[in-house]
Amino acid sequence: MIMTGRRQRRLGRTGTGRGRGVPPKVVALGGGHGLAASLAALRRITGDLTAVVTVADDGGSSGRLRSEMGVLPPGDLRKALAALCGDDEWGKTWSQVVQHRFVSGGDLHGHAVGNLLIVALWEQLNDEVAALEWVGRLLGAHGRVLPMSAVPLDLHAVVRGHDPAEPDAVSTVRGQATVALTPGEVQEVKVEPADPPAVPEAVQAVLDADWVVLGPGSWFSSVIPHLLVPELADALMTTRARRVLTLNLAPQPGETAGFSPQRHLEVLGRHAPKLTIDVVLADEAAVPDRDSLEEAALRLGGTVELAPVAAPDGPRHDPELLAAAYDRIFRMRGRIGPWR
Amino acid sequence: MIMTGRRQRRLGRTGTGRGRGVPPKVVALGGGHGLAASLAALRRITGDLTAVVTVADDGGSSGRLRSEMGVLPPGDLRKALAALCGDDEWGKTWSQVVQHRFVSGGDLHGHAVGNLLIVALWEQLNDEVAALEWVGRLLGAHGRVLPMSAVPLDLHAVVRGHDPAEPDAVSTVRGQATVALTPGEVQEVKVEPADPPAVPEAVQAVLDADWVVLGPGSWFSSVIPHLLVPELADALMTTRARRVLTLNLAPQPGETAGFSPQRHLEVLGRHAPKLTIDVVLADEAAVPDRDSLEEAALRLGGTVELAPVAAPDGPRHDPELLAAAYDRIFRMRGRIGPWR
Repeated sequence: MIMTGRRQRRLGRTGTGRGRGVPPKVVALGGGHGLAASLAALRRITGDLTAVVTVADDGGSSGRLRSEMGVLPPGDLRKALAALCGDDEWGKTWSQVVQHRFVSGGDLHGHAVGNLLIVALWEQLNDEVAALEWVGRLLGAHGRVLPMSAVPLDLHAVVRGHDPAEPDAVSTVRGQATVALTPGEVQEVKVEPADPPAVPEAVQAVLDADWVVLGPGSWFSSVIPHLLVPELADALMTTRARRVLTLNLAPQPGETAGFSPQRHLEVLGRHAPKLTIDVVLADEAAVPDRDSLEEAALRLGGTVELAPVAAPDGPRHDPELLAAAYDRIFRMRGRIGPWR
Repeated sequence: MIMTGRRQRRLGRTGTGRGRGVPPKVVALGGGHGLAASLAALRRITGDLTAVVTVADDGGSSGRLRSEMGVLPPGDLRKALAALCGDDEWGKTWSQVVQHRFVSGGDLHGHAVGNLLIVALWEQLNDEVAALEWVGRLLGAHGRVLPMSAVPLDLHAVVRGHDPAEPDAVSTVRGQATVALTPGEVQEVKVEPADPPAVPEAVQAVLDADWVVLGPGSWFSSVIPHLLVPELADALMTTRARRVLTLNLAPQPGETAGFSPQRHLEVLGRHAPKLTIDVVLADEAAVPDRDSLEEAALRLGGTVELAPVAAPDGPRHDPELLAAAYDRIFRMRGRIGPWR
């Protein structure tokens, strides 16, 4: 049976559509290792996957390239592309090359080759999105990778006790790399410029999605920044896609040290008061107080889904287990839940 | 008709083989722009093309990588690969990326992206030849590119008058980049280590070839060094392939300033006294004294073929014209000449 666009669309909206052979359109937002984990899982259950990646990194190879060449920080984009690379020898080899990091006593030390390749394509094509498509084609990527903004952003954080000698003093900490390691308690993050333009393809992907996935990842530096890009935040609020928020398996030393799961939801909600979440996905072992988490989820408009998603060998998401959890959510919540 | 290997081989040996649908096996030796010109022509007339590339460069991006990472200088290999890139959008785009050179006020300034990519593949695969095959596959290259040695070489030159204040003094000048620019008269070049191992695939390619092409190119730094790799020089002497030596269109400021065409042959012969050449290809306009050139060619065992191979816009070889000249040589000299 050949379905018309409208029929496909309706199926997509009322569930995963996978029962009828149409993969759900999924958009994953984030950065760094958290987004890579998300993509490694989602690629297993949909053929229609888009990553929207934060562009506020100012550390390491990305930070140096940003400062030397005046480009977007490429590192999180590279990691997302590598997480989507093809399973064959071609995809795996190029993924290894793209992820390869030079070790030397000289100028190249620490640079990831894929970062250099992405920057070269940006300079050659003068088109951030098209350049990433070329890297995606090189890797045989199972999905698209888009920057959330075409403008590099600076992350600032309002932190209480950034200087351990003054634990109650509130100060502004500048730069993602510094924010990520602050010993203080992050109250709020902002980006500069304060009203960055979103990449139109990223906005459209969110609007067209069946499911949007936020997290896991560094909460203040990879998950929340998307909510600070106004057009993207608007799209996240107005899309008819359902929204899953996936929690980390442990607080992150530095930016979320000591944060409970519910605290993660509270700070996210504070940065986007109108955003609703349909499902909060967490690993049972990482939720000491289920009632409090459910209350916090309810305040965002959603419910909690607990599933074993941690790998046995440490606090990282297991791709197979996370995929199974998403698959269950997409099937169950797509069918049963009320349609907004 | 399906031909056996032996039948193919015989056809290949007794001519170009192209009349029977078998492309001639051609090996082009050189480096830099000269080799790129050679490959741009040869790719038009054979589907069985191998480039064997010098590895003595110590200047620019290659020199810096060599010194920082302890690798072969990748620049000449990159240029050869780019000259062989596919004609489609894929090949052309990746070729542009590989040839892209960073311009900045920082550490990356002057590095060609393809050099960095080749070094990364060398480090990942730990196999110089396989890594270059991967870049060739990326570019959809019409041929193979091999380094002449897996060991980076240092070029030394015995130069008369390197210091213009002492025009008759003979001194040793070290490093290809310095040799190429010497204001003195190069008498002889040597490589260090003095007995470098050849890349076995390069030796085999020369032994299996129907035609071997030396030049055009920087005479002392790109053409002659191949004769200083003993196993490669032996293969060039013992192969049953025919040998074409293609002259430059003009002396090169620095290393061959003031050299006549015949002088080019003499210095080449001095570096490999047992090497014979079948055909010396030159542009008529670049040969002021044909008789002297023919005498010099005869001393190497060959004859002169004059053809219009210069581009109208300057002293560079036109790929179409050079291809036509090689095609004529491969057809005529393959059929008529006596078999060694």
